[in-house]
Amino acid sequence: MTVSSAESIPQPSFNFQGTVDQTGPQVVGGKGVRINIEKDGKVYENVLDAITGAAVGALGWGDEDALDIINKAARASTYSYPCLISNKSSEALAKYYIDHSPEGAFAAALWCTSGSESNENALRIIRQYWLERGLPNKVKLISRESSYHGFTLGAQSISWNPRVEPYGPYLMNREKINIQIPAAYTYRFKRAEETEEDYAKRLIDVTEKKILDNDPNTIAALTVETLPGSSLGTTPPPKGYLKGLRDLCNKYDIIFHLDEVMCGTGRSNPNGNFNCWENFLAPEDAPDIQTVGKTLGSGYVTIAGILIGPKIRSAYVNGSKSIHGANTYSSHSFNCAVSLGILQKLRNEKLTTNIFKMGNLMGEKLSNVLLSDDNIAGDVRGIGGFWSVEFVKDRATKEPFDLSLNIAGRFKAICFENKLNVMGMPGNPDGSCGDRCLLAPSFIITDKDVDEIVEVMAKSVKQLSTSLRKEGAW
Amino acid sequence: MTVSSAESIPQPSFNFQGTVDQTGPQVVGGKGVRINIEKDGKVYENVLDAITGAAVGALGWGDEDALDIINKAARASTYSYPCLISNKSSEALAKYYIDHSPEGAFAAALWCTSGSESNENALRIIRQYWLERGLPNKVKLISRESSYHGFTLGAQSISWNPRVEPYGPYLMNREKINIQIPAAYTYRFKRAEETEEDYAKRLIDVTEKKILDNDPNTIAALTVETLPGSSLGTTPPPKGYLKGLRDLCNKYDIIFHLDEVMCGTGRSNPNGNFNCWENFLAPEDAPDIQTVGKTLGSGYVTIAGILIGPKIRSAYVNGSKSIHGANTYSSHSFNCAVSLGILQKLRNEKLTTNIFKMGNLMGEKLSNVLLSDDNIAGDVRGIGGFWSVEFVKDRATKEPFDLSLNIAGRFKAICFENKLNVMGMPGNPDGSCGDRCLLAPSFIITDKDVDEIVEVMAKSVKQLSTSLRKEGAW
Repeated sequence: MTVSSAESIPQPSFNFQGTVDQTGPQVVGGKGVRINIEKDGKVYENVLDAITGAAVGALGWGDEDALDIINKAARASTYSYPCLISNKSSEALAKYYIDHSPEGAFAAALWCTSGSESNENALRIIRQYWLERGLPNKVKLISRESSYHGFTLGAQSISWNPRVEPYGPYLMNREKINIQIPAAYTYRFKRAEETEEDYAKRLIDVTEKKILDNDPNTIAALTVETLPGSSLGTTPPPKGYLKGLRDLCNKYDIIFHLDEVMCGTGRSNPNGNFNCWENFLAPEDAPDIQTVGKTLGSGYVTIAGILIGPKIRSAYVNGSKSIHGANTYSSHSFNCAVSLGILQKLRNEKLTTNIFKMGNLMGEKLSNVLLSDDNIAGDVRGIGGFWSVEFVKDRATKEPFDLSLNIAGRFKAICFENKLNVMGMPGNPDGSCGDRCLLAPSFIITDKDVDEIVEVMAKSVKQLSTSLRKEGAW
Repeated sequence: MTVSSAESIPQPSFNFQGTVDQTGPQVVGGKGVRINIEKDGKVYENVLDAITGAAVGALGWGDEDALDIINKAARASTYSYPCLISNKSSEALAKYYIDHSPEGAFAAALWCTSGSESNENALRIIRQYWLERGLPNKVKLISRESSYHGFTLGAQSISWNPRVEPYGPYLMNREKINIQIPAAYTYRFKRAEETEEDYAKRLIDVTEKKILDNDPNTIAALTVETLPGSSLGTTPPPKGYLKGLRDLCNKYDIIFHLDEVMCGTGRSNPNGNFNCWENFLAPEDAPDIQTVGKTLGSGYVTIAGILIGPKIRSAYVNGSKSIHGANTYSSHSFNCAVSLGILQKLRNEKLTTNIFKMGNLMGEKLSNVLLSDDNIAGDVRGIGGFWSVEFVKDRATKEPFDLSLNIAGRFKAICFENKLNVMGMPGNPDGSCGDRCLLAPSFIITDKDVDEIVEVMAKSVKQLSTSLRKEGAW
């Protein structure tokens, strides 16, 4: 083969991800809340993992029970093409999730292998739902600005953030199909004179106008993250907002889809169970369809899923009785068995209760420490085990930093040098959201871990603030 | 919550797949080439698995080495968000696949969790490739009729088969982006007076005309399955066809993408290695990008991947150096470690060599037995471990059966009663392809297994043929 200059490029990495011509940091071990990272030839030991990948870890790393569950699940599982020959593990996992959700909320589940796939499946299920009901013109999909629902092209089509733009030609017909509504973003967009309820009301009114302007008879579904993750940063919905959306969906016969891939499955549940929406909605206001992932496999296996409400299931049962298509790795027996074992441990050992309490304690302490000091922290927000710190140039005006300053990346790097693993997310280019640091520790964290996270966060915010002051950037 | 009539529907199954109101057959065990299936309360033991899910199983079921690999991989792996903190297992798997492909064919790899995701990633990587080269108008995607590349909406957009239709509104702009070319389908579309080479030449000429009619400067990629799987049935490309496509891609600066999710990773390789295209293409004609899955995890873990040729890697390295976006479960350390262990066993124990030999023996015996008898088998085709039998009403005219007869489903059911697990695929509604039975046994099959498969296939074809004759349908 003709060797082009390209092929002689030094190749330290065979992975085509991140920076493609370099080997970046690598995880080389983990136990409990600590991970060991090799970076530039040096091993950083016992780094406190305050983000667990991207809000994936529920159990700690190297959990002996999980390893035992995996070993047994592998021995007990045989692969089959699930659409033709199913298995008991996927049934058991579905039943367990449904049984530990409010009664009547969900009637069935489908397991797949990533959050992106769960939202792709949701879109397919929503499409078929309207076909089952004989309403093929119900096709439009409402979703929010500053949102992220996955990397696949269907999931990208209902996401609105700068990362989606390069794929424009490969998305759905955004003019005909996709309807964008405002983010619910209390820190920036609630007016000073408004109560949270007023703000929620204003958002609902805007949404209703969008529905009416786009002909309700052509609208299929409304998709929101219960607690937004990577593209906005854990901003809790203002009081009454989700209930308002639910009511609009009822009024105009629209599927209400909650994306809980990042915030769900125990990360932020007030009742020791799984769904994040239980913070905000009564059982009778449950979503019609819900997508989940991440903590479902806790990083041990690659699993995600779709919870199906009784309304959707019954349209199928009263219609064709069967769901179109299938995926080779749906309902994967081994993945489902491992996930079930993990969920059982999370509930039985009250780890979902622990993370709700410890996470809220962490948030409270972070707010107290960061916002009482003179630094670049503008907002500290979240629920349970999922929190964000948003950085601003000016607390009064909430002006974000210029993206070229790479505040999120620098903050993450400082934390890492201080032996704390966090995630940094850049702000929006239009200034509608500042750089953020995301925190999502494992459900096993203790008071002591919380104090360590808060301490290192405070130290790191101070370090970055001082550097920026010296540079004249703050 | 208001209980609608829907909620009182008896619910034997909590899974939302297949027939949604019934519990179908379930796999309850497996060892080697045999599986145990529970169906309607009865357990069918030691069913010979001649399809291994959907061409997923490479190792046999319950393989002790695989279980050991899983146990060790789980202990050695810690999850991290791969785009920020990678791992050594994903690097090692990439290097192994590349090292055991023809020299210079591939330069990097990205691991994901399903074949659909691999094709979604391929589309993203192709899009960014043209952006890196400063050619944003290279957007159109060529793919073939009777093709399938995954269930996600991006993958569906480059697939052309009846199963895609319901999702029309959610696909890419098919008029502006997607270009459909004919399937390469020797059994039906090679004219009697043509040699294989003539037929290939005709297909290439049609493709070149499509390229010219659609402005080559706007065409991004051409995607074909090396050996088509579910939507056409293992029809080998006519002699010179893939080389012709490769040459067209070189001539018009188009990315040549081979989808080997179903046919690749050892299922049909003549050299004891992995790529199916080695049957048809010289190393210097390797694809620019290749997607793989299925046997990569052999059903034990949910993994798929994208192999990147040096041309694509170098455009990134000479450009932005980084790949947009990432997925939570990319490069999953545990999945990669298990996959690597499985690939090593497949090569070291010459199981890839075995399946190529045994699979071809199976195909030869099936052809001899089925086509020499008076029955509904019209064509027996395939390579290595991947074969199809196409059923026809009339061997001379190749007229398919009416789809309402459910030939594929009935054949599958008869085989199952005869303790053979196969896959049945319905024909195309327009008659462009008949019902088929797919075979893809695990790589460990012996002479004796081959004889059993052939014997039961022959018996089952005879049974169905006899029934159809009695019904007056044949």
